[in-house]
Amino acid sequence: MKRKKIAIVMGSKSDLPVMSQAAEVLEKLEVGFDLSIVSAHRTPHRMVEFAESAHKNGYAAIIAGAGGAAHLPGMIASLTPLPVIGVPVKSSNSIDGWDSVLSILQMPGGVPVATVALDGAKNAGILAAQILGATDDAVLERISRYKDELREKVEESIADIEANGYKGKRLGF
Amino acid sequence: MKRKKIAIVMGSKSDLPVMSQAAEVLEKLEVGFDLSIVSAHRTPHRMVEFAESAHKNGYAAIIAGAGGAAHLPGMIASLTPLPVIGVPVKSSNSIDGWDSVLSILQMPGGVPVATVALDGAKNAGILAAQILGATDDAVLERISRYKDELREKVEESIADIEANGYKGKRLGF
Amino acid sequence: MKRKKIAIVMGSKSDLPVMSQAAEVLEKLEVGFDLSIVSAHRTPHRMVEFAESAHKNGYAAIIAGAGGAAHLPGMIASLTPLPVIGVPVKSSNSIDGWDSVLSILQMPGGVPVATVALDGAKNAGILAAQILGATDDAVLERISRYKDELREKVEESIADIEANGYKGKRLGF
Amino acid sequence: MKRKKIAIVMGSKSDLPVMSQAAEVLEKLEVGFDLSIVSAHRTPHRMVEFAESAHKNGYAAIIAGAGGAAHLPGMIASLTPLPVIGVPVKSSNSIDGWDSVLSILQMPGGVPVATVALDGAKNAGILAAQILGATDDAVLERISRYKDELREKVEESIADIEANGYKGKRLGF
Amino acid sequence: MKRKKIAIVMGSKSDLPVMSQAAEVLEKLEVGFDLSIVSAHRTPHRMVEFAESAHKNGYAAIIAGAGGAAHLPGMIASLTPLPVIGVPVKSSNSIDGWDSVLSILQMPGGVPVATVALDGAKNAGILAAQILGATDDAVLERISRYKDELREKVEESIADIEANGYKGKRLGF
Amino acid sequence: MKRKKIAIVMGSKSDLPVMSQAAEVLEKLEVGFDLSIVSAHRTPHRMVEFAESAHKNGYAAIIAGAGGAAHLPGMIASLTPLPVIGVPVKSSNSIDGWDSVLSILQMPGGVPVATVALDGAKNAGILAAQILGATDDAVLERISRYKDELREKVEESIADIEANGYKGKRLGF
Amino acid sequence: MKRKKIAIVMGSKSDLPVMSQAAEVLEKLEVGFDLSIVSAHRTPHRMVEFAESAHKNGYAAIIAGAGGAAHLPGMIASLTPLPVIGVPVKSSNSIDGWDSVLSILQMPGGVPVATVALDGAKNAGILAAQILGATDDAVLERISRYKDELREKVEESIADIEANGYKGKRLGF
Amino acid sequence: MKRKKIAIVMGSKSDLPVMSQAAEVLEKLEVGFDLSIVSAHRTPHRMVEFAESAHKNGYAAIIAGAGGAAHLPGMIASLTPLPVIGVPVKSSNSIDGWDSVLSILQMPGGVPVATVALDGAKNAGILAAQILGATDDAVLERISRYKDELREKVEESIADIEANGYKGKRLGF
Repeated sequence: MKRKKIAIVMGSKSDLPVMSQAAEVLEKLEVGFDLSIVSAHRTPHRMVEFAESAHKNGYAAIIAGAGGAAHLPGMIASLTPLPVIGVPVKSSNSIDGWDSVLSILQMPGGVPVATVALDGAKNAGILAAQILGATDDAVLERISRYKDELREKVEESIADIEANGYKGKRLGF
Repeated sequence: MKRKKIAIVMGSKSDLPVMSQAAEVLEKLEVGFDLSIVSAHRTPHRMVEFAESAHKNGYAAIIAGAGGAAHLPGMIASLTPLPVIGVPVKSSNSIDGWDSVLSILQMPGGVPVATVALDGAKNAGILAAQILGATDDAVLERISRYKDELREKVEESIADIEANGYKGKRLGF
Repeated sequence: MKRKKIAIVMGSKSDLPVMSQAAEVLEKLEVGFDLSIVSAHRTPHRMVEFAESAHKNGYAAIIAGAGGAAHLPGMIASLTPLPVIGVPVKSSNSIDGWDSVLSILQMPGGVPVATVALDGAKNAGILAAQILGATDDAVLERISRYKDELREKVEESIADIEANGYKGKRLGF
Repeated sequence: MKRKKIAIVMGSKSDLPVMSQAAEVLEKLEVGFDLSIVSAHRTPHRMVEFAESAHKNGYAAIIAGAGGAAHLPGMIASLTPLPVIGVPVKSSNSIDGWDSVLSILQMPGGVPVATVALDGAKNAGILAAQILGATDDAVLERISRYKDELREKVEESIADIEANGYKGKRLGF
Repeated sequence: MKRKKIAIVMGSKSDLPVMSQAAEVLEKLEVGFDLSIVSAHRTPHRMVEFAESAHKNGYAAIIAGAGGAAHLPGMIASLTPLPVIGVPVKSSNSIDGWDSVLSILQMPGGVPVATVALDGAKNAGILAAQILGATDDAVLERISRYKDELREKVEESIADIEANGYKGKRLGF
Repeated sequence: MKRKKIAIVMGSKSDLPVMSQAAEVLEKLEVGFDLSIVSAHRTPHRMVEFAESAHKNGYAAIIAGAGGAAHLPGMIASLTPLPVIGVPVKSSNSIDGWDSVLSILQMPGGVPVATVALDGAKNAGILAAQILGATDDAVLERISRYKDELREKVEESIADIEANGYKGKRLGF
Repeated sequence: MKRKKIAIVMGSKSDLPVMSQAAEVLEKLEVGFDLSIVSAHRTPHRMVEFAESAHKNGYAAIIAGAGGAAHLPGMIASLTPLPVIGVPVKSSNSIDGWDSVLSILQMPGGVPVATVALDGAKNAGILAAQILGATDDAVLERISRYKDELREKVEESIADIEANGYKGKRLGF
Repeated sequence: MKRKKIAIVMGSKSDLPVMSQAAEVLEKLEVGFDLSIVSAHRTPHRMVEFAESAHKNGYAAIIAGAGGAAHLPGMIASLTPLPVIGVPVKSSNSIDGWDSVLSILQMPGGVPVATVALDGAKNAGILAAQILGATDDAVLERISRYKDELREKVEESIADIEANGYKGKRLGF
């Protein structure tokens, strides 16, 4: 079967404001996805079932976000052959985010999690699209266009800053 | 049934030099225990089976040690109603032990792990005995005696330091 | 005598909003407890008297919370054979909570403190109940039920997020 | 054209002992790769040329390792639509590896780097294979088998530890 | 040709409130400057072109500010023989500023970045003027006068605090 | 001559809200003091003159507070034979206070600074009084009384918490 | 009675190599002292007795060194009106010394500990002498001479480095 | 007068192995320099005299290295209008270098120190040369050539790694 969709899961409903940024960028890049809550610590059986069957259910990659002692991305990675992207979420009781970052990033040899920046769900979405784009030219093309748009937005800022930013000073080169 | 034994599990064979200190102190305190390897990331099914049945197999508490992104103690805690004691192990690729400490300590509300110091397996063993001692006077008595021995060893050091440590200076009080 | 109650102590009245979460969860789990202020640095004699007699006063475990250079949990642990659960409280002058965490967690060999997450008083309460539950089937059963409720709350969130979260996307597995 | 190979680049020859672990695991997983040095700070033009053309030269993903203020993975990510995997290398003057980790992980929105653990080149290789496996069943199958081998090695350790580890104690479940 | 101006660049428009402090102090010290946005990750080609030609366009030094995984100062430094001053900006998703600081400061041997304090753009401006003043007596004189003003402002505070600060207490010496 | 007064100095007027707590507690303990601004970086000559003559001007100890790269306490300590108490102030651009703490605490061998907690000016005041009290029984007596008051305030909190804190629960011992 | 001696205590015999440096510098400065082991966690009653009577036993100040969760200096400070100097010792299981530093430094309002650098026992000794010197001219004079010696040793290094250090280069001023 | 030389100063003779790397690279870049020991804490008067007169003694910039609570670079910066380059040295009692880095980097507004990486004396030398090169074409040219040599050395490594590094794999682009 064809694996073309991305699964977005998060440990708690409170992660949704951060994690929905992954969904938004996937929509923009025209990549299909599903999204739900899967808690490593509160629904461990749901986690095992989801992770073990994901590659048979059309998912090409999994984005998992969690905060504090964030075990969801790493545990899913131990249960699936698919690439897993981990999003450290800065939850309310977090020690400045270090706990989420380190408990997702520092996986042992054999079980990688592709970790993005603290609260970096948007980048997780782009990375998931890039995984499809690695072998799919149409997706790769949309990512290239997305990067062009980023550049164009910066170019608008440049025009604006040269006009209004600090007395119209212009960088010469 | 009676729950009287302690289960000691660790993520990898390389954790044994640290984790065997838990076993040694339990022997000394005359508390029964079993010990094995259970890897959250490499044998997740073994972990689920072990954790879900531990309270039916005579275990009163579980000591779990792991390094790096250390998910074993927290995942076991999500699968058992028993108290779980977590030992952060300073593994070779660890970032100074912070990764192990934070990924064991910072568990979300509802799923506690009783965390001890970095490489503190000896204290994990004592704590497991104290859990039994909480309601068992014989064990409590052995813990009290163990503490007396700690004090006596310090008293020997004091005698030694006053005789030889720094020119026989004696603290007056 | 029977030890069945939990003692909850804290270093300062300002710790009460955090520490009362331990009390609430113990009430929910039908475990008896007493609660008061015991300051290592301001009432050291009260601390010694309380800690040395706790196991004779019906307490099975002690929950101690403190912030900054948090010596209360460790000092109590040095004075009682009972298991001591330490709650690092993020006080106002704390350096991001690191001071409380490290001065509770990093106890020397022989004197364990069962440390929970920063401001994790709720988990301290659950852990205290688990210590009783280790040898008491009725308490263990209530903890199992509590965990079922956690799972059920997540399941409600899942239903909600699938209906409303991000355009009704449903995770397939 | 078909993109099937992985490019492994590193900032300095001194990164080779770490980065060759990515090569070894790709060989084992039967994924083709090329490997060389590309320095963001010493050969910036080589970096631009390599990164901008990688997707036209048959590479499906890029593994980039660097230490200290590690700009190579992020700069390559800014120049290619392909997924980039970053390996923080603990170089000799590093501040315990924190510099490498943070300068690779904390990429701004729009330009992800899939970061693995400090010195985690082996996991970078597996992740690169997983990116191919996301849409290629043969590679996915090899990854599944690789995971089985990890489990089998742990099972050997278990047998060994139960026979010799700590007086033949056996975990019951 | 004469190099007399300073180039101030920043990775994003959101850095302007911090970076404009460099502009203000240069104005005060009567040093010419230009200011714009140059993004290492979104406009890499603009960065290369700017950096490689800066010494031919009348710039004597470059001030570069960026947040998070801040690659702009170091990448510019790799492309120009001019001195580059790096300003770590504490951006919104930063891990307390550590990411910006370390990814600017910890440059490898051969490619220095003169790093100032977190959000220290004012000091970056002074440092740029000092670079000109190193060989230009008129600028050096203005810097000396600026330092006198700093001292005079402190002296006003002293008079004020002795009159009103804490009951007119006066330091004797 | 008799040295009986304490000098309180701070690097900037913005440190006054923190540093005035040292003054308040010295007033309470009936210890004389003077207070002013002395900036290591903006008035270095004032600092040298003050520090070198302090022991001849009736000061028995110096309290110095500063934030960020806080050089004032250590530089004064290098210029006086008197004990110097350093107060790390958490200034606005500080990296969570770590900079102030480490640049005051980590003095080289030969030049101690008696460092107190972040923003701990109150404790600096008490410590200064204790330095006098070390050899002056009247001051020592006032410190003992101050400590009694601390205990009494805690005892009021205890009474209050037992009456109102959490349903009148009373700690038994 | 006259208080003229310094008490040096440490938590464990393993702290002696560090703590004897306090003794050595006190000998050099001709200040009397006693030295022994007092463990907060293993001999809490000895600690209470020592601390409460120290000011009646001729001690003017107490130097206390400990590692890990280092409670000794702060607990002694809670039990004596004398100034207490804390030495964070980097013990074997310490997390890079951060635990010792923070659990000694971050004392709550009312109970100061004069903290010196990690393993800074030599500076603790000097500080203790300075506490006596605050009101005793003879001791102050010896401290001034000690500082002169420090300067003279540096001057010898200067002569040496100008002769041999880097080709006899001489700093002009 | 012409300012053309660089002054290299360090807090202690033990900093020479690190700081001599600044001297070596200045020799290579044909920039004159003098080198000596100036201790902020042990020879404060020497420091003041040196710093206040440096711009009159032919120095165009000052390189200052120190470890621990490293006050030398910042104090010199407060006393001279010249640019000051700070080298954080990882001394023996340092807390992993964080103390040196933060006490040099985090200077207050008005008094910049151009900070380089931990133990980054080589880069301090290059930066000093770049300060001269900012307005001197001959020096700038030598820096450009130095950068070419860095690139050439990498190119040799590339050739070597492609021949021998990992089975002669060649990066295609």
